[in-house]
Amino acid sequence: MMYYPVHSGYPPYPEVNRAIEAVFAEHGRGDCRMPPKIYVALVRSGDFRTMPAYLPKPGLAGVKIVNVNPHNRARGLPTVMALTVLIDVETGAPEAIINATELTAMRTGAAGAVAAKYLAPRQAITLGVIGAGRQTEALIDATVAALTVEEIRVWSRTAKSAEALASRYADYSARSVSIEHACDCDVLTTATPSTTPLVMAEWIHEGTHINAIGADAPGKQELDPVLLQKAEVFVDDRSQAIHSGEINVPISTGRYNPDRIAGTLGEVVIGKKKRSSPDAITIFDSTGLAIQDLAIAALAIQNSEGYELPFP
Amino acid sequence: MMYYPVHSGYPPYPEVNRAIEAVFAEHGRGDCRMPPKIYVALVRSGDFRTMPAYLPKPGLAGVKIVNVNPHNRARGLPTVMALTVLIDVETGAPEAIINATELTAMRTGAAGAVAAKYLAPRQAITLGVIGAGRQTEALIDATVAALTVEEIRVWSRTAKSAEALASRYADYSARSVSIEHACDCDVLTTATPSTTPLVMAEWIHEGTHINAIGADAPGKQELDPVLLQKAEVFVDDRSQAIHSGEINVPISTGRYNPDRIAGTLGEVVIGKKKRSSPDAITIFDSTGLAIQDLAIAALAIQNSEGYELPFP
Repeated sequence: MMYYPVHSGYPPYPEVNRAIEAVFAEHGRGDCRMPPKIYVALVRSGDFRTMPAYLPKPGLAGVKIVNVNPHNRARGLPTVMALTVLIDVETGAPEAIINATELTAMRTGAAGAVAAKYLAPRQAITLGVIGAGRQTEALIDATVAALTVEEIRVWSRTAKSAEALASRYADYSARSVSIEHACDCDVLTTATPSTTPLVMAEWIHEGTHINAIGADAPGKQELDPVLLQKAEVFVDDRSQAIHSGEINVPISTGRYNPDRIAGTLGEVVIGKKKRSSPDAITIFDSTGLAIQDLAIAALAIQNSEGYELPFP
Repeated sequence: MMYYPVHSGYPPYPEVNRAIEAVFAEHGRGDCRMPPKIYVALVRSGDFRTMPAYLPKPGLAGVKIVNVNPHNRARGLPTVMALTVLIDVETGAPEAIINATELTAMRTGAAGAVAAKYLAPRQAITLGVIGAGRQTEALIDATVAALTVEEIRVWSRTAKSAEALASRYADYSARSVSIEHACDCDVLTTATPSTTPLVMAEWIHEGTHINAIGADAPGKQELDPVLLQKAEVFVDDRSQAIHSGEINVPISTGRYNPDRIAGTLGEVVIGKKKRSSPDAITIFDSTGLAIQDLAIAALAIQNSEGYELPFP
């Protein structure tokens, strides 16, 4: 059994996007076993999530264990820390343990890029981003590897964070702007921990694609429910999205009917579903799938230095 | 983060039994968060199970990942291999990874010993065992640490295995016997991978306590359903037992009504439930709980040598 700290030498986004697209295709064909992720709340704050999955075709099996604790920043620790255990599909033995903290942000960014590739109204885009944390950065990096990004419009609750992020993407004419202005774009990504809607329906014009990334637990939401009602919502996984995605709060308050879900990203990737017209507003509701974690873990260890550990 | 191979220096059974009894007490008081274990079937054979849990009072959180693959023996590998990840309850960070292959057998043995301590008709017992594998050995070792074992009667499908096991417990007058004779005892433990009943109702006399250990997945069973109907069945965890314990097959065929479950082992440990009379037949239906894995992992690393691993 090997341990991979994966502190550097991350795989490049074109490869990551390709690997993530491939597992969404497996998901779209129904060729994976993936129970919904399990949440266990810890007593003072935060939770940890357990995400097992198995993909028969590429022969990948394993479990990601990931925590979310907003108070970690004050302790000098990441909010999100993750470990993926890869399992030998023949024997069931654990064969590799991978530090998946950075990989978690990357595979989430790649899912947004894959969604934008298939659902964006055009291939040369203006990218709007709401939130300026680590996840937003990964979303931008993955998206510029998938599409031509002509301009980036950044909004964050803290203007200083927005400006700092924008300055790192000067090559893409990134600027810190008002939230309404950021929403005036071709592809909008939201990646905040918000529990109340930030993006109002009237700010989004026809043809926009939105990657709704932040909501990944019950009670979280970033979009005006009116926007969900008039948009075509694609989810990563139906049961996870209903439980903890962008649609979870509107479903629980009766403002969104899960029968209206337009399809899954996997179905979009295999060509079974698509945006209905150039004018439609499309939303990708991302909760994060265990199969994404297996894919990026397998990719990351290919050129990574590991520690041999005695097992069993 | 530390890795503990735990290849030797296992904690002694009196300590293990005490630790396991303590977490069953927490479970009996409802003081734990433990979603039912999740099964993922692998394609050729076998499966892996993911078991998260959190015990607020002792401050233990984590996940065990364990596979079961009957074909591993032919490969020179254990049928069951397990890894436990302990999580810091304050930050959510993984703090220790523990080889739990041997610990899994030990904590299961200890659950049987705790059940026998509370449900056996007397403290000096004749112990009957059905099956002669690693799990049976752990059950015997744990039981002799909890009760006075005057005699052991061993039955296994392979007489040679039964004789080999008996020879290792000569100090307890262990002998290989017929299955009917093994069933004539005070405490009977069954630990086979059987999917059809092995122990017939007419072989079990009044007052016997049975530890039904083998059935831990849908389709598995070791006991005559008639025996379940007339016995008082205590489970480790209600939903797990209904899904995958000894009662799972009789429930699915309508031969056992889950409303008849007499209680949980945790409720027995805290004195809320007990055998109704000295003549009753009691059964402990064990599926194996994640909280047992957390308890024994925390105990095992106390005097164990570990490897420091860079994380995050």
